[in-house]
Amino acid sequence: MNLPIMEQTFISAKASFAEAKAVILGCPYDGSATFRPGARFGPSAIRKTSWGIETYSPYQESDLTQIKIHDMGDLELPLGEKKTSLSLIQEGARRILSAKKFPIFLGGDHLITLPIIEEIHRVYPDVHVLHIDAHTDLREEYLGETLNHSTVMKKVLDLLSKGRLSQVGIRSGAQEEFALAEKIGSILFSDPKSLRRMVNRLKNRPVYISLDLDVMDPGLLPGVGTPEPGGFTFQEILSLFKGLQPLRVIGFDLVELTPDYDPSQISSVTASVILREMILAFCSR
Amino acid sequence: MNLPIMEQTFISAKASFAEAKAVILGCPYDGSATFRPGARFGPSAIRKTSWGIETYSPYQESDLTQIKIHDMGDLELPLGEKKTSLSLIQEGARRILSAKKFPIFLGGDHLITLPIIEEIHRVYPDVHVLHIDAHTDLREEYLGETLNHSTVMKKVLDLLSKGRLSQVGIRSGAQEEFALAEKIGSILFSDPKSLRRMVNRLKNRPVYISLDLDVMDPGLLPGVGTPEPGGFTFQEILSLFKGLQPLRVIGFDLVELTPDYDPSQISSVTASVILREMILAFCSR
Amino acid sequence: MNLPIMEQTFISAKASFAEAKAVILGCPYDGSATFRPGARFGPSAIRKTSWGIETYSPYQESDLTQIKIHDMGDLELPLGEKKTSLSLIQEGARRILSAKKFPIFLGGDHLITLPIIEEIHRVYPDVHVLHIDAHTDLREEYLGETLNHSTVMKKVLDLLSKGRLSQVGIRSGAQEEFALAEKIGSILFSDPKSLRRMVNRLKNRPVYISLDLDVMDPGLLPGVGTPEPGGFTFQEILSLFKGLQPLRVIGFDLVELTPDYDPSQISSVTASVILREMILAFCSR
Amino acid sequence: MNLPIMEQTFISAKASFAEAKAVILGCPYDGSATFRPGARFGPSAIRKTSWGIETYSPYQESDLTQIKIHDMGDLELPLGEKKTSLSLIQEGARRILSAKKFPIFLGGDHLITLPIIEEIHRVYPDVHVLHIDAHTDLREEYLGETLNHSTVMKKVLDLLSKGRLSQVGIRSGAQEEFALAEKIGSILFSDPKSLRRMVNRLKNRPVYISLDLDVMDPGLLPGVGTPEPGGFTFQEILSLFKGLQPLRVIGFDLVELTPDYDPSQISSVTASVILREMILAFCSR
Amino acid sequence: MNLPIMEQTFISAKASFAEAKAVILGCPYDGSATFRPGARFGPSAIRKTSWGIETYSPYQESDLTQIKIHDMGDLELPLGEKKTSLSLIQEGARRILSAKKFPIFLGGDHLITLPIIEEIHRVYPDVHVLHIDAHTDLREEYLGETLNHSTVMKKVLDLLSKGRLSQVGIRSGAQEEFALAEKIGSILFSDPKSLRRMVNRLKNRPVYISLDLDVMDPGLLPGVGTPEPGGFTFQEILSLFKGLQPLRVIGFDLVELTPDYDPSQISSVTASVILREMILAFCSR
Amino acid sequence: MNLPIMEQTFISAKASFAEAKAVILGCPYDGSATFRPGARFGPSAIRKTSWGIETYSPYQESDLTQIKIHDMGDLELPLGEKKTSLSLIQEGARRILSAKKFPIFLGGDHLITLPIIEEIHRVYPDVHVLHIDAHTDLREEYLGETLNHSTVMKKVLDLLSKGRLSQVGIRSGAQEEFALAEKIGSILFSDPKSLRRMVNRLKNRPVYISLDLDVMDPGLLPGVGTPEPGGFTFQEILSLFKGLQPLRVIGFDLVELTPDYDPSQISSVTASVILREMILAFCSR
Repeated sequence: MNLPIMEQTFISAKASFAEAKAVILGCPYDGSATFRPGARFGPSAIRKTSWGIETYSPYQESDLTQIKIHDMGDLELPLGEKKTSLSLIQEGARRILSAKKFPIFLGGDHLITLPIIEEIHRVYPDVHVLHIDAHTDLREEYLGETLNHSTVMKKVLDLLSKGRLSQVGIRSGAQEEFALAEKIGSILFSDPKSLRRMVNRLKNRPVYISLDLDVMDPGLLPGVGTPEPGGFTFQEILSLFKGLQPLRVIGFDLVELTPDYDPSQISSVTASVILREMILAFCSR
Repeated sequence: MNLPIMEQTFISAKASFAEAKAVILGCPYDGSATFRPGARFGPSAIRKTSWGIETYSPYQESDLTQIKIHDMGDLELPLGEKKTSLSLIQEGARRILSAKKFPIFLGGDHLITLPIIEEIHRVYPDVHVLHIDAHTDLREEYLGETLNHSTVMKKVLDLLSKGRLSQVGIRSGAQEEFALAEKIGSILFSDPKSLRRMVNRLKNRPVYISLDLDVMDPGLLPGVGTPEPGGFTFQEILSLFKGLQPLRVIGFDLVELTPDYDPSQISSVTASVILREMILAFCSR
Repeated sequence: MNLPIMEQTFISAKASFAEAKAVILGCPYDGSATFRPGARFGPSAIRKTSWGIETYSPYQESDLTQIKIHDMGDLELPLGEKKTSLSLIQEGARRILSAKKFPIFLGGDHLITLPIIEEIHRVYPDVHVLHIDAHTDLREEYLGETLNHSTVMKKVLDLLSKGRLSQVGIRSGAQEEFALAEKIGSILFSDPKSLRRMVNRLKNRPVYISLDLDVMDPGLLPGVGTPEPGGFTFQEILSLFKGLQPLRVIGFDLVELTPDYDPSQISSVTASVILREMILAFCSR
Repeated sequence: MNLPIMEQTFISAKASFAEAKAVILGCPYDGSATFRPGARFGPSAIRKTSWGIETYSPYQESDLTQIKIHDMGDLELPLGEKKTSLSLIQEGARRILSAKKFPIFLGGDHLITLPIIEEIHRVYPDVHVLHIDAHTDLREEYLGETLNHSTVMKKVLDLLSKGRLSQVGIRSGAQEEFALAEKIGSILFSDPKSLRRMVNRLKNRPVYISLDLDVMDPGLLPGVGTPEPGGFTFQEILSLFKGLQPLRVIGFDLVELTPDYDPSQISSVTASVILREMILAFCSR
Repeated sequence: MNLPIMEQTFISAKASFAEAKAVILGCPYDGSATFRPGARFGPSAIRKTSWGIETYSPYQESDLTQIKIHDMGDLELPLGEKKTSLSLIQEGARRILSAKKFPIFLGGDHLITLPIIEEIHRVYPDVHVLHIDAHTDLREEYLGETLNHSTVMKKVLDLLSKGRLSQVGIRSGAQEEFALAEKIGSILFSDPKSLRRMVNRLKNRPVYISLDLDVMDPGLLPGVGTPEPGGFTFQEILSLFKGLQPLRVIGFDLVELTPDYDPSQISSVTASVILREMILAFCSR
Repeated sequence: MNLPIMEQTFISAKASFAEAKAVILGCPYDGSATFRPGARFGPSAIRKTSWGIETYSPYQESDLTQIKIHDMGDLELPLGEKKTSLSLIQEGARRILSAKKFPIFLGGDHLITLPIIEEIHRVYPDVHVLHIDAHTDLREEYLGETLNHSTVMKKVLDLLSKGRLSQVGIRSGAQEEFALAEKIGSILFSDPKSLRRMVNRLKNRPVYISLDLDVMDPGLLPGVGTPEPGGFTFQEILSLFKGLQPLRVIGFDLVELTPDYDPSQISSVTASVILREMILAFCSR
């Protein structure tokens, strides 16, 4: 008699590190959340609820089981030590990249994206960052803090220079942030035409996608650190992914899920399906 | 002085069994839920919150008070005994059908639909089933279990044969389930044209509707056993009902409400309004 | 070293009463709620969560910091004494109006609007009321109660007479209420054309807006006393405000937020953004 | 085949009004709650969760099934009309008393006890009231409101005069309230000796018990309008009931359950068991 | 640089199956819950929250790190198939017992104990069962269902015969259950003297402990299927364990944690500490 | 007509800074929480719920209104910048101390106590710290982090030296922490005799009290960062305060309230009453 044991990884992520094409790493740092903390519990909530969804996507007519995925679990981080936490995340990214795997990071708050992109940038010096978010995250500082989930894209911009950052879904920010975004032309509409133009421009360039789950409407995904009304529906996010599929995506992250603010758990379930769709859209090339 | 006492039935369901045209029966079996249990509390949650809505539908310009409805309450079921529970539900269906009433069943998980359709099928051998759901429910088995909320439509199909099952709203299932659905052509788009074609085909045939509340978007109706992003809005469900109104509907069920996963109670309120709209759309012919 | 202290007002409402152009007053009366009470906690929840949003609106490209706003805090009301509570609210309105400030009221249940409009009507005898709500609120009485959150617009109508009340977003009410609404032609569609027609008709007339937050879809704003499926999305509410901008609005209220029914807090956050948008759209003329 | 249907009354309360010895009436008025409203949902929550407990008490070695109980359900009250609501409650009490039944009232906030005692007092002019509560409820007024859940025992005192009110469990009140309580000697310790003394004094006098559930520790029963730390454990409440058993109790109420503030539902379950114990202790003489 | 990854087992359970002395197996069957389902999520909730507690017990002055423990994870069970689920649990027990490990089972509802004890009984024919619970669980049947979480100890009794079952903490059951318990003398007080007597009687006999977490007071541990007021405090459970320490315990289970009914998560944390204390008290001989 | 406005301070804290004897400062830093974050919302939750309790303590027969208290509100802190946040808290302490006020700090996580005691120590070089907590907080480091809510008392010890730290309520910690506590003899039982001995020893010495709310039983106060079963009841905390009253307390803090983990809000209410009792016990000398 066979003794079936439930997996504790993300659904269908059964491959070993060695045999995997894509590798998932949980980065549960939430020390720079300015409103509601708790994104440290995001990656484990995605893993747990992923067993309530299917591996098959009827939207893309493909199945997660067709891709070899390894789930490394969550980094154990000293959450009050920002620098150390970011270094450990960077080291995690290094391990995955040096093994030539497709990296997938689960946040944590949005600041985790900074050390990841620093590492991505060393491997792909011409990387372009596609930032999908409700918030510009282009502040210089927040209450004097320069490394923060609300300044992270300003830091990315400083690293990559103008023209290397595109932003979709933005609907919140300070006046100065929108002024900067306009100046560098980063903000992108999500209509097919705008997307096609960007896709054409970036064709053959390595693209890293950073998706803050608060880009979704808070009605659909209430469990985030900084909810903002008026976001994407699930259908709009699917259309966006479809439009982006021609890109040469070399990695992505999914951040800011704060599951304890959503007792209905639909935020975690929806994040799981978004993760499935992103893996199928971007890892299988 | 008159002493007003609050009713404990579904709103406006004051008729006796004898005088009623339509009869509501709660079937709180949730023993085959594969993800989150608790649909046993669905029918009582609908009854309770129904007193916060109106009996009048501005969409259909008609009023529940114009239809004589009896609410039998909930069956008392031995939830760990699947066969016995299903038999009791079937017996409940028999009582309503043999009295020539329009039957309305409140789940419970989706497996309750199987004994109901078995009974419906005896009375209406040419019945067509319209399955409104996020999930195909066409599995052969789930972890070796063949009678399950995820296999129920496969069993219905086996009973009724090909061409007698139509499915609307489907957006989740295993690859084999979609393959089967495609083979038998069951999946239907919810655009007016597709609906009209089906309505034309089924005109004068008895139709039974089984509506799994997870067909709605989980943002609107989070309290279900297996939430799946990307569902119908309330307007879309109204349009669907409008499109289906020419059908000769001979009964329906509403399943999978899991109220304790939604502390905001909007799931139960929305289910109450959906029940009102279905009664007005399908019982008043 | 400067010692920064967090404000406890609505975001950016730092002006003194004397210097302010607009004045916010919390009216936490919820004694006439017929379904779920708790709107007494609405104004404080808006204040608290407003610190998680931005002062800048990318939709209107303007910033709250450009308007001098004073937040008076919440009235302390004897909630079981309806008449006294309503008198205190009326007195609050009188203070603001007699100082020639733009008044903004936060409910509380919808009955608070009655004493406010009585006061507004004394100052602006030709005031037109724009009622944005899911419910008609046109009952004569509810269980014998004539002053109630479900009769409030009937009372307003009695005060102002026919043609002086317009209603947008209505999707729930008793049959008689819809009959009355039709008779007086109050119900308005929210399409640009209908709005433009009303705006043209009311140009130069003083308009008071009363917005019941249950006009929004309960998926987006579950924390209300009487949730009703099928409401406005946030984009629709923005379009509505845009369409109304030519009006000469002389005050408004935001009522029925019931925050303890929404542990995700998205209701309060969304109400905060709606309040920001209304201030920017209607106070800055 | 028998078709078992779940009851919607309090557990085991199957008797008709005519045959019943004891009669339960839900009085869901909560219009005078000063902190958290929602006691309107108390009686229905007790009914629903009572089906998760047993009819048998191992503490008293007796069973609810041995007493004929009728459950009238809940009064339908115009909650914003305090006077009317109280009149309807008084009328409800009158019906039960005039039929010579043992009356049991479920609140609702504590103000419901006033019209009940007015009615009790007409039938039993020498009634003594035993008030079990965390709060003195002896205020003259609260924010100018004289009929309120915090003034109710002052009104009872005015009706019955000094020496006819005893209070147990009190641990919260204004300084003047404690001064008054001391002056009239109402406050009673719950040790066996104090209880015995009171029981001796009241032997053969009709006693009405009014139990505010916040007398329990909020750790055990968090779902109340005004939680106050440091209350009775369940064992202490059992001891209290045991000590009171020799009294000639002629009716009682159980008030202030506010179930929506307790998602764990233990408040309603505990209230159900307390109700069972009170029925067994006081109705079976 | 070392890359620290968080464990997903119960805290400190890092040993391999081969090297372990004690083995934990999650048995997430909850198909026989009669009131609130959801114990299927119990084992994973214990694992997750165990990382918020310490491995060291100041009560026993010993540390989990001193015992080699393996955590097998959770069985994957077809929850609607009672017989199959119970067989798989029995097979799991067989694996652990045949490898001569100390078995620890995490429920799931209490019915999981039956197949476990059947297996234990094959290995230890003279086993004595110590049942720690709020409920007798001695029913013959529940709504016609004979295999159920409320009949499990009757089945155990049938298997082991009179004198081989002791019950502590019991405070709820039907009258017949208490009658049976009295007849067979199973119910035990938890005072030191009673315990000492039992311990003396059972010295050298193999003892299996089955602990239903609802034996704790629901104020401390609200997240259970069938909460019952008046249970053990944590100190009382510690005293009980201390009194039982001389026994030769050969395995135990911990059942009925229903974490989704407790958003505060204290139920899972407390269950984790109880599990730590049981391992330290009973596995280290 | 007077227009009553609700206060937003802690109850009865109406004095200006200048006239106040005691000053409350909220320090909402929670960046070093190792398990559940959210203590940033602690001070505002205490303020809000304090309006549901009384100013009068029947335990001490005294009233908050007899003490002039000023509530400064909450510091606005860059939560991801530990050093800066701690500096701002220290600066806040300096302001209060240099004005010779009795300081009261509301956390925030326990690390806030470190900068406060550094400042206290400058003013009172012979200060003794009384640490009331479930956890030793005596770690050298946690995952490499040396400034953390779990190391804070080790840092205090390093500052003050042996014999200057007493700890009450401790029931959780690593083995090394208990070893250290034993070596320095810091842990104190809460029985009257032990307390009297300590009080005698410290008579006339300035004493600072740091109270971590998780010292209370999590059944009573579930909303804390790191719940630990088996804590103080409210009566035990009152007895403790009574025993400590002869001490010359020169300030105190109340930390680790994490209100969003407790939808019943009893944690915040209980914290409010504890704060009232501490003010009455320790500020009025």
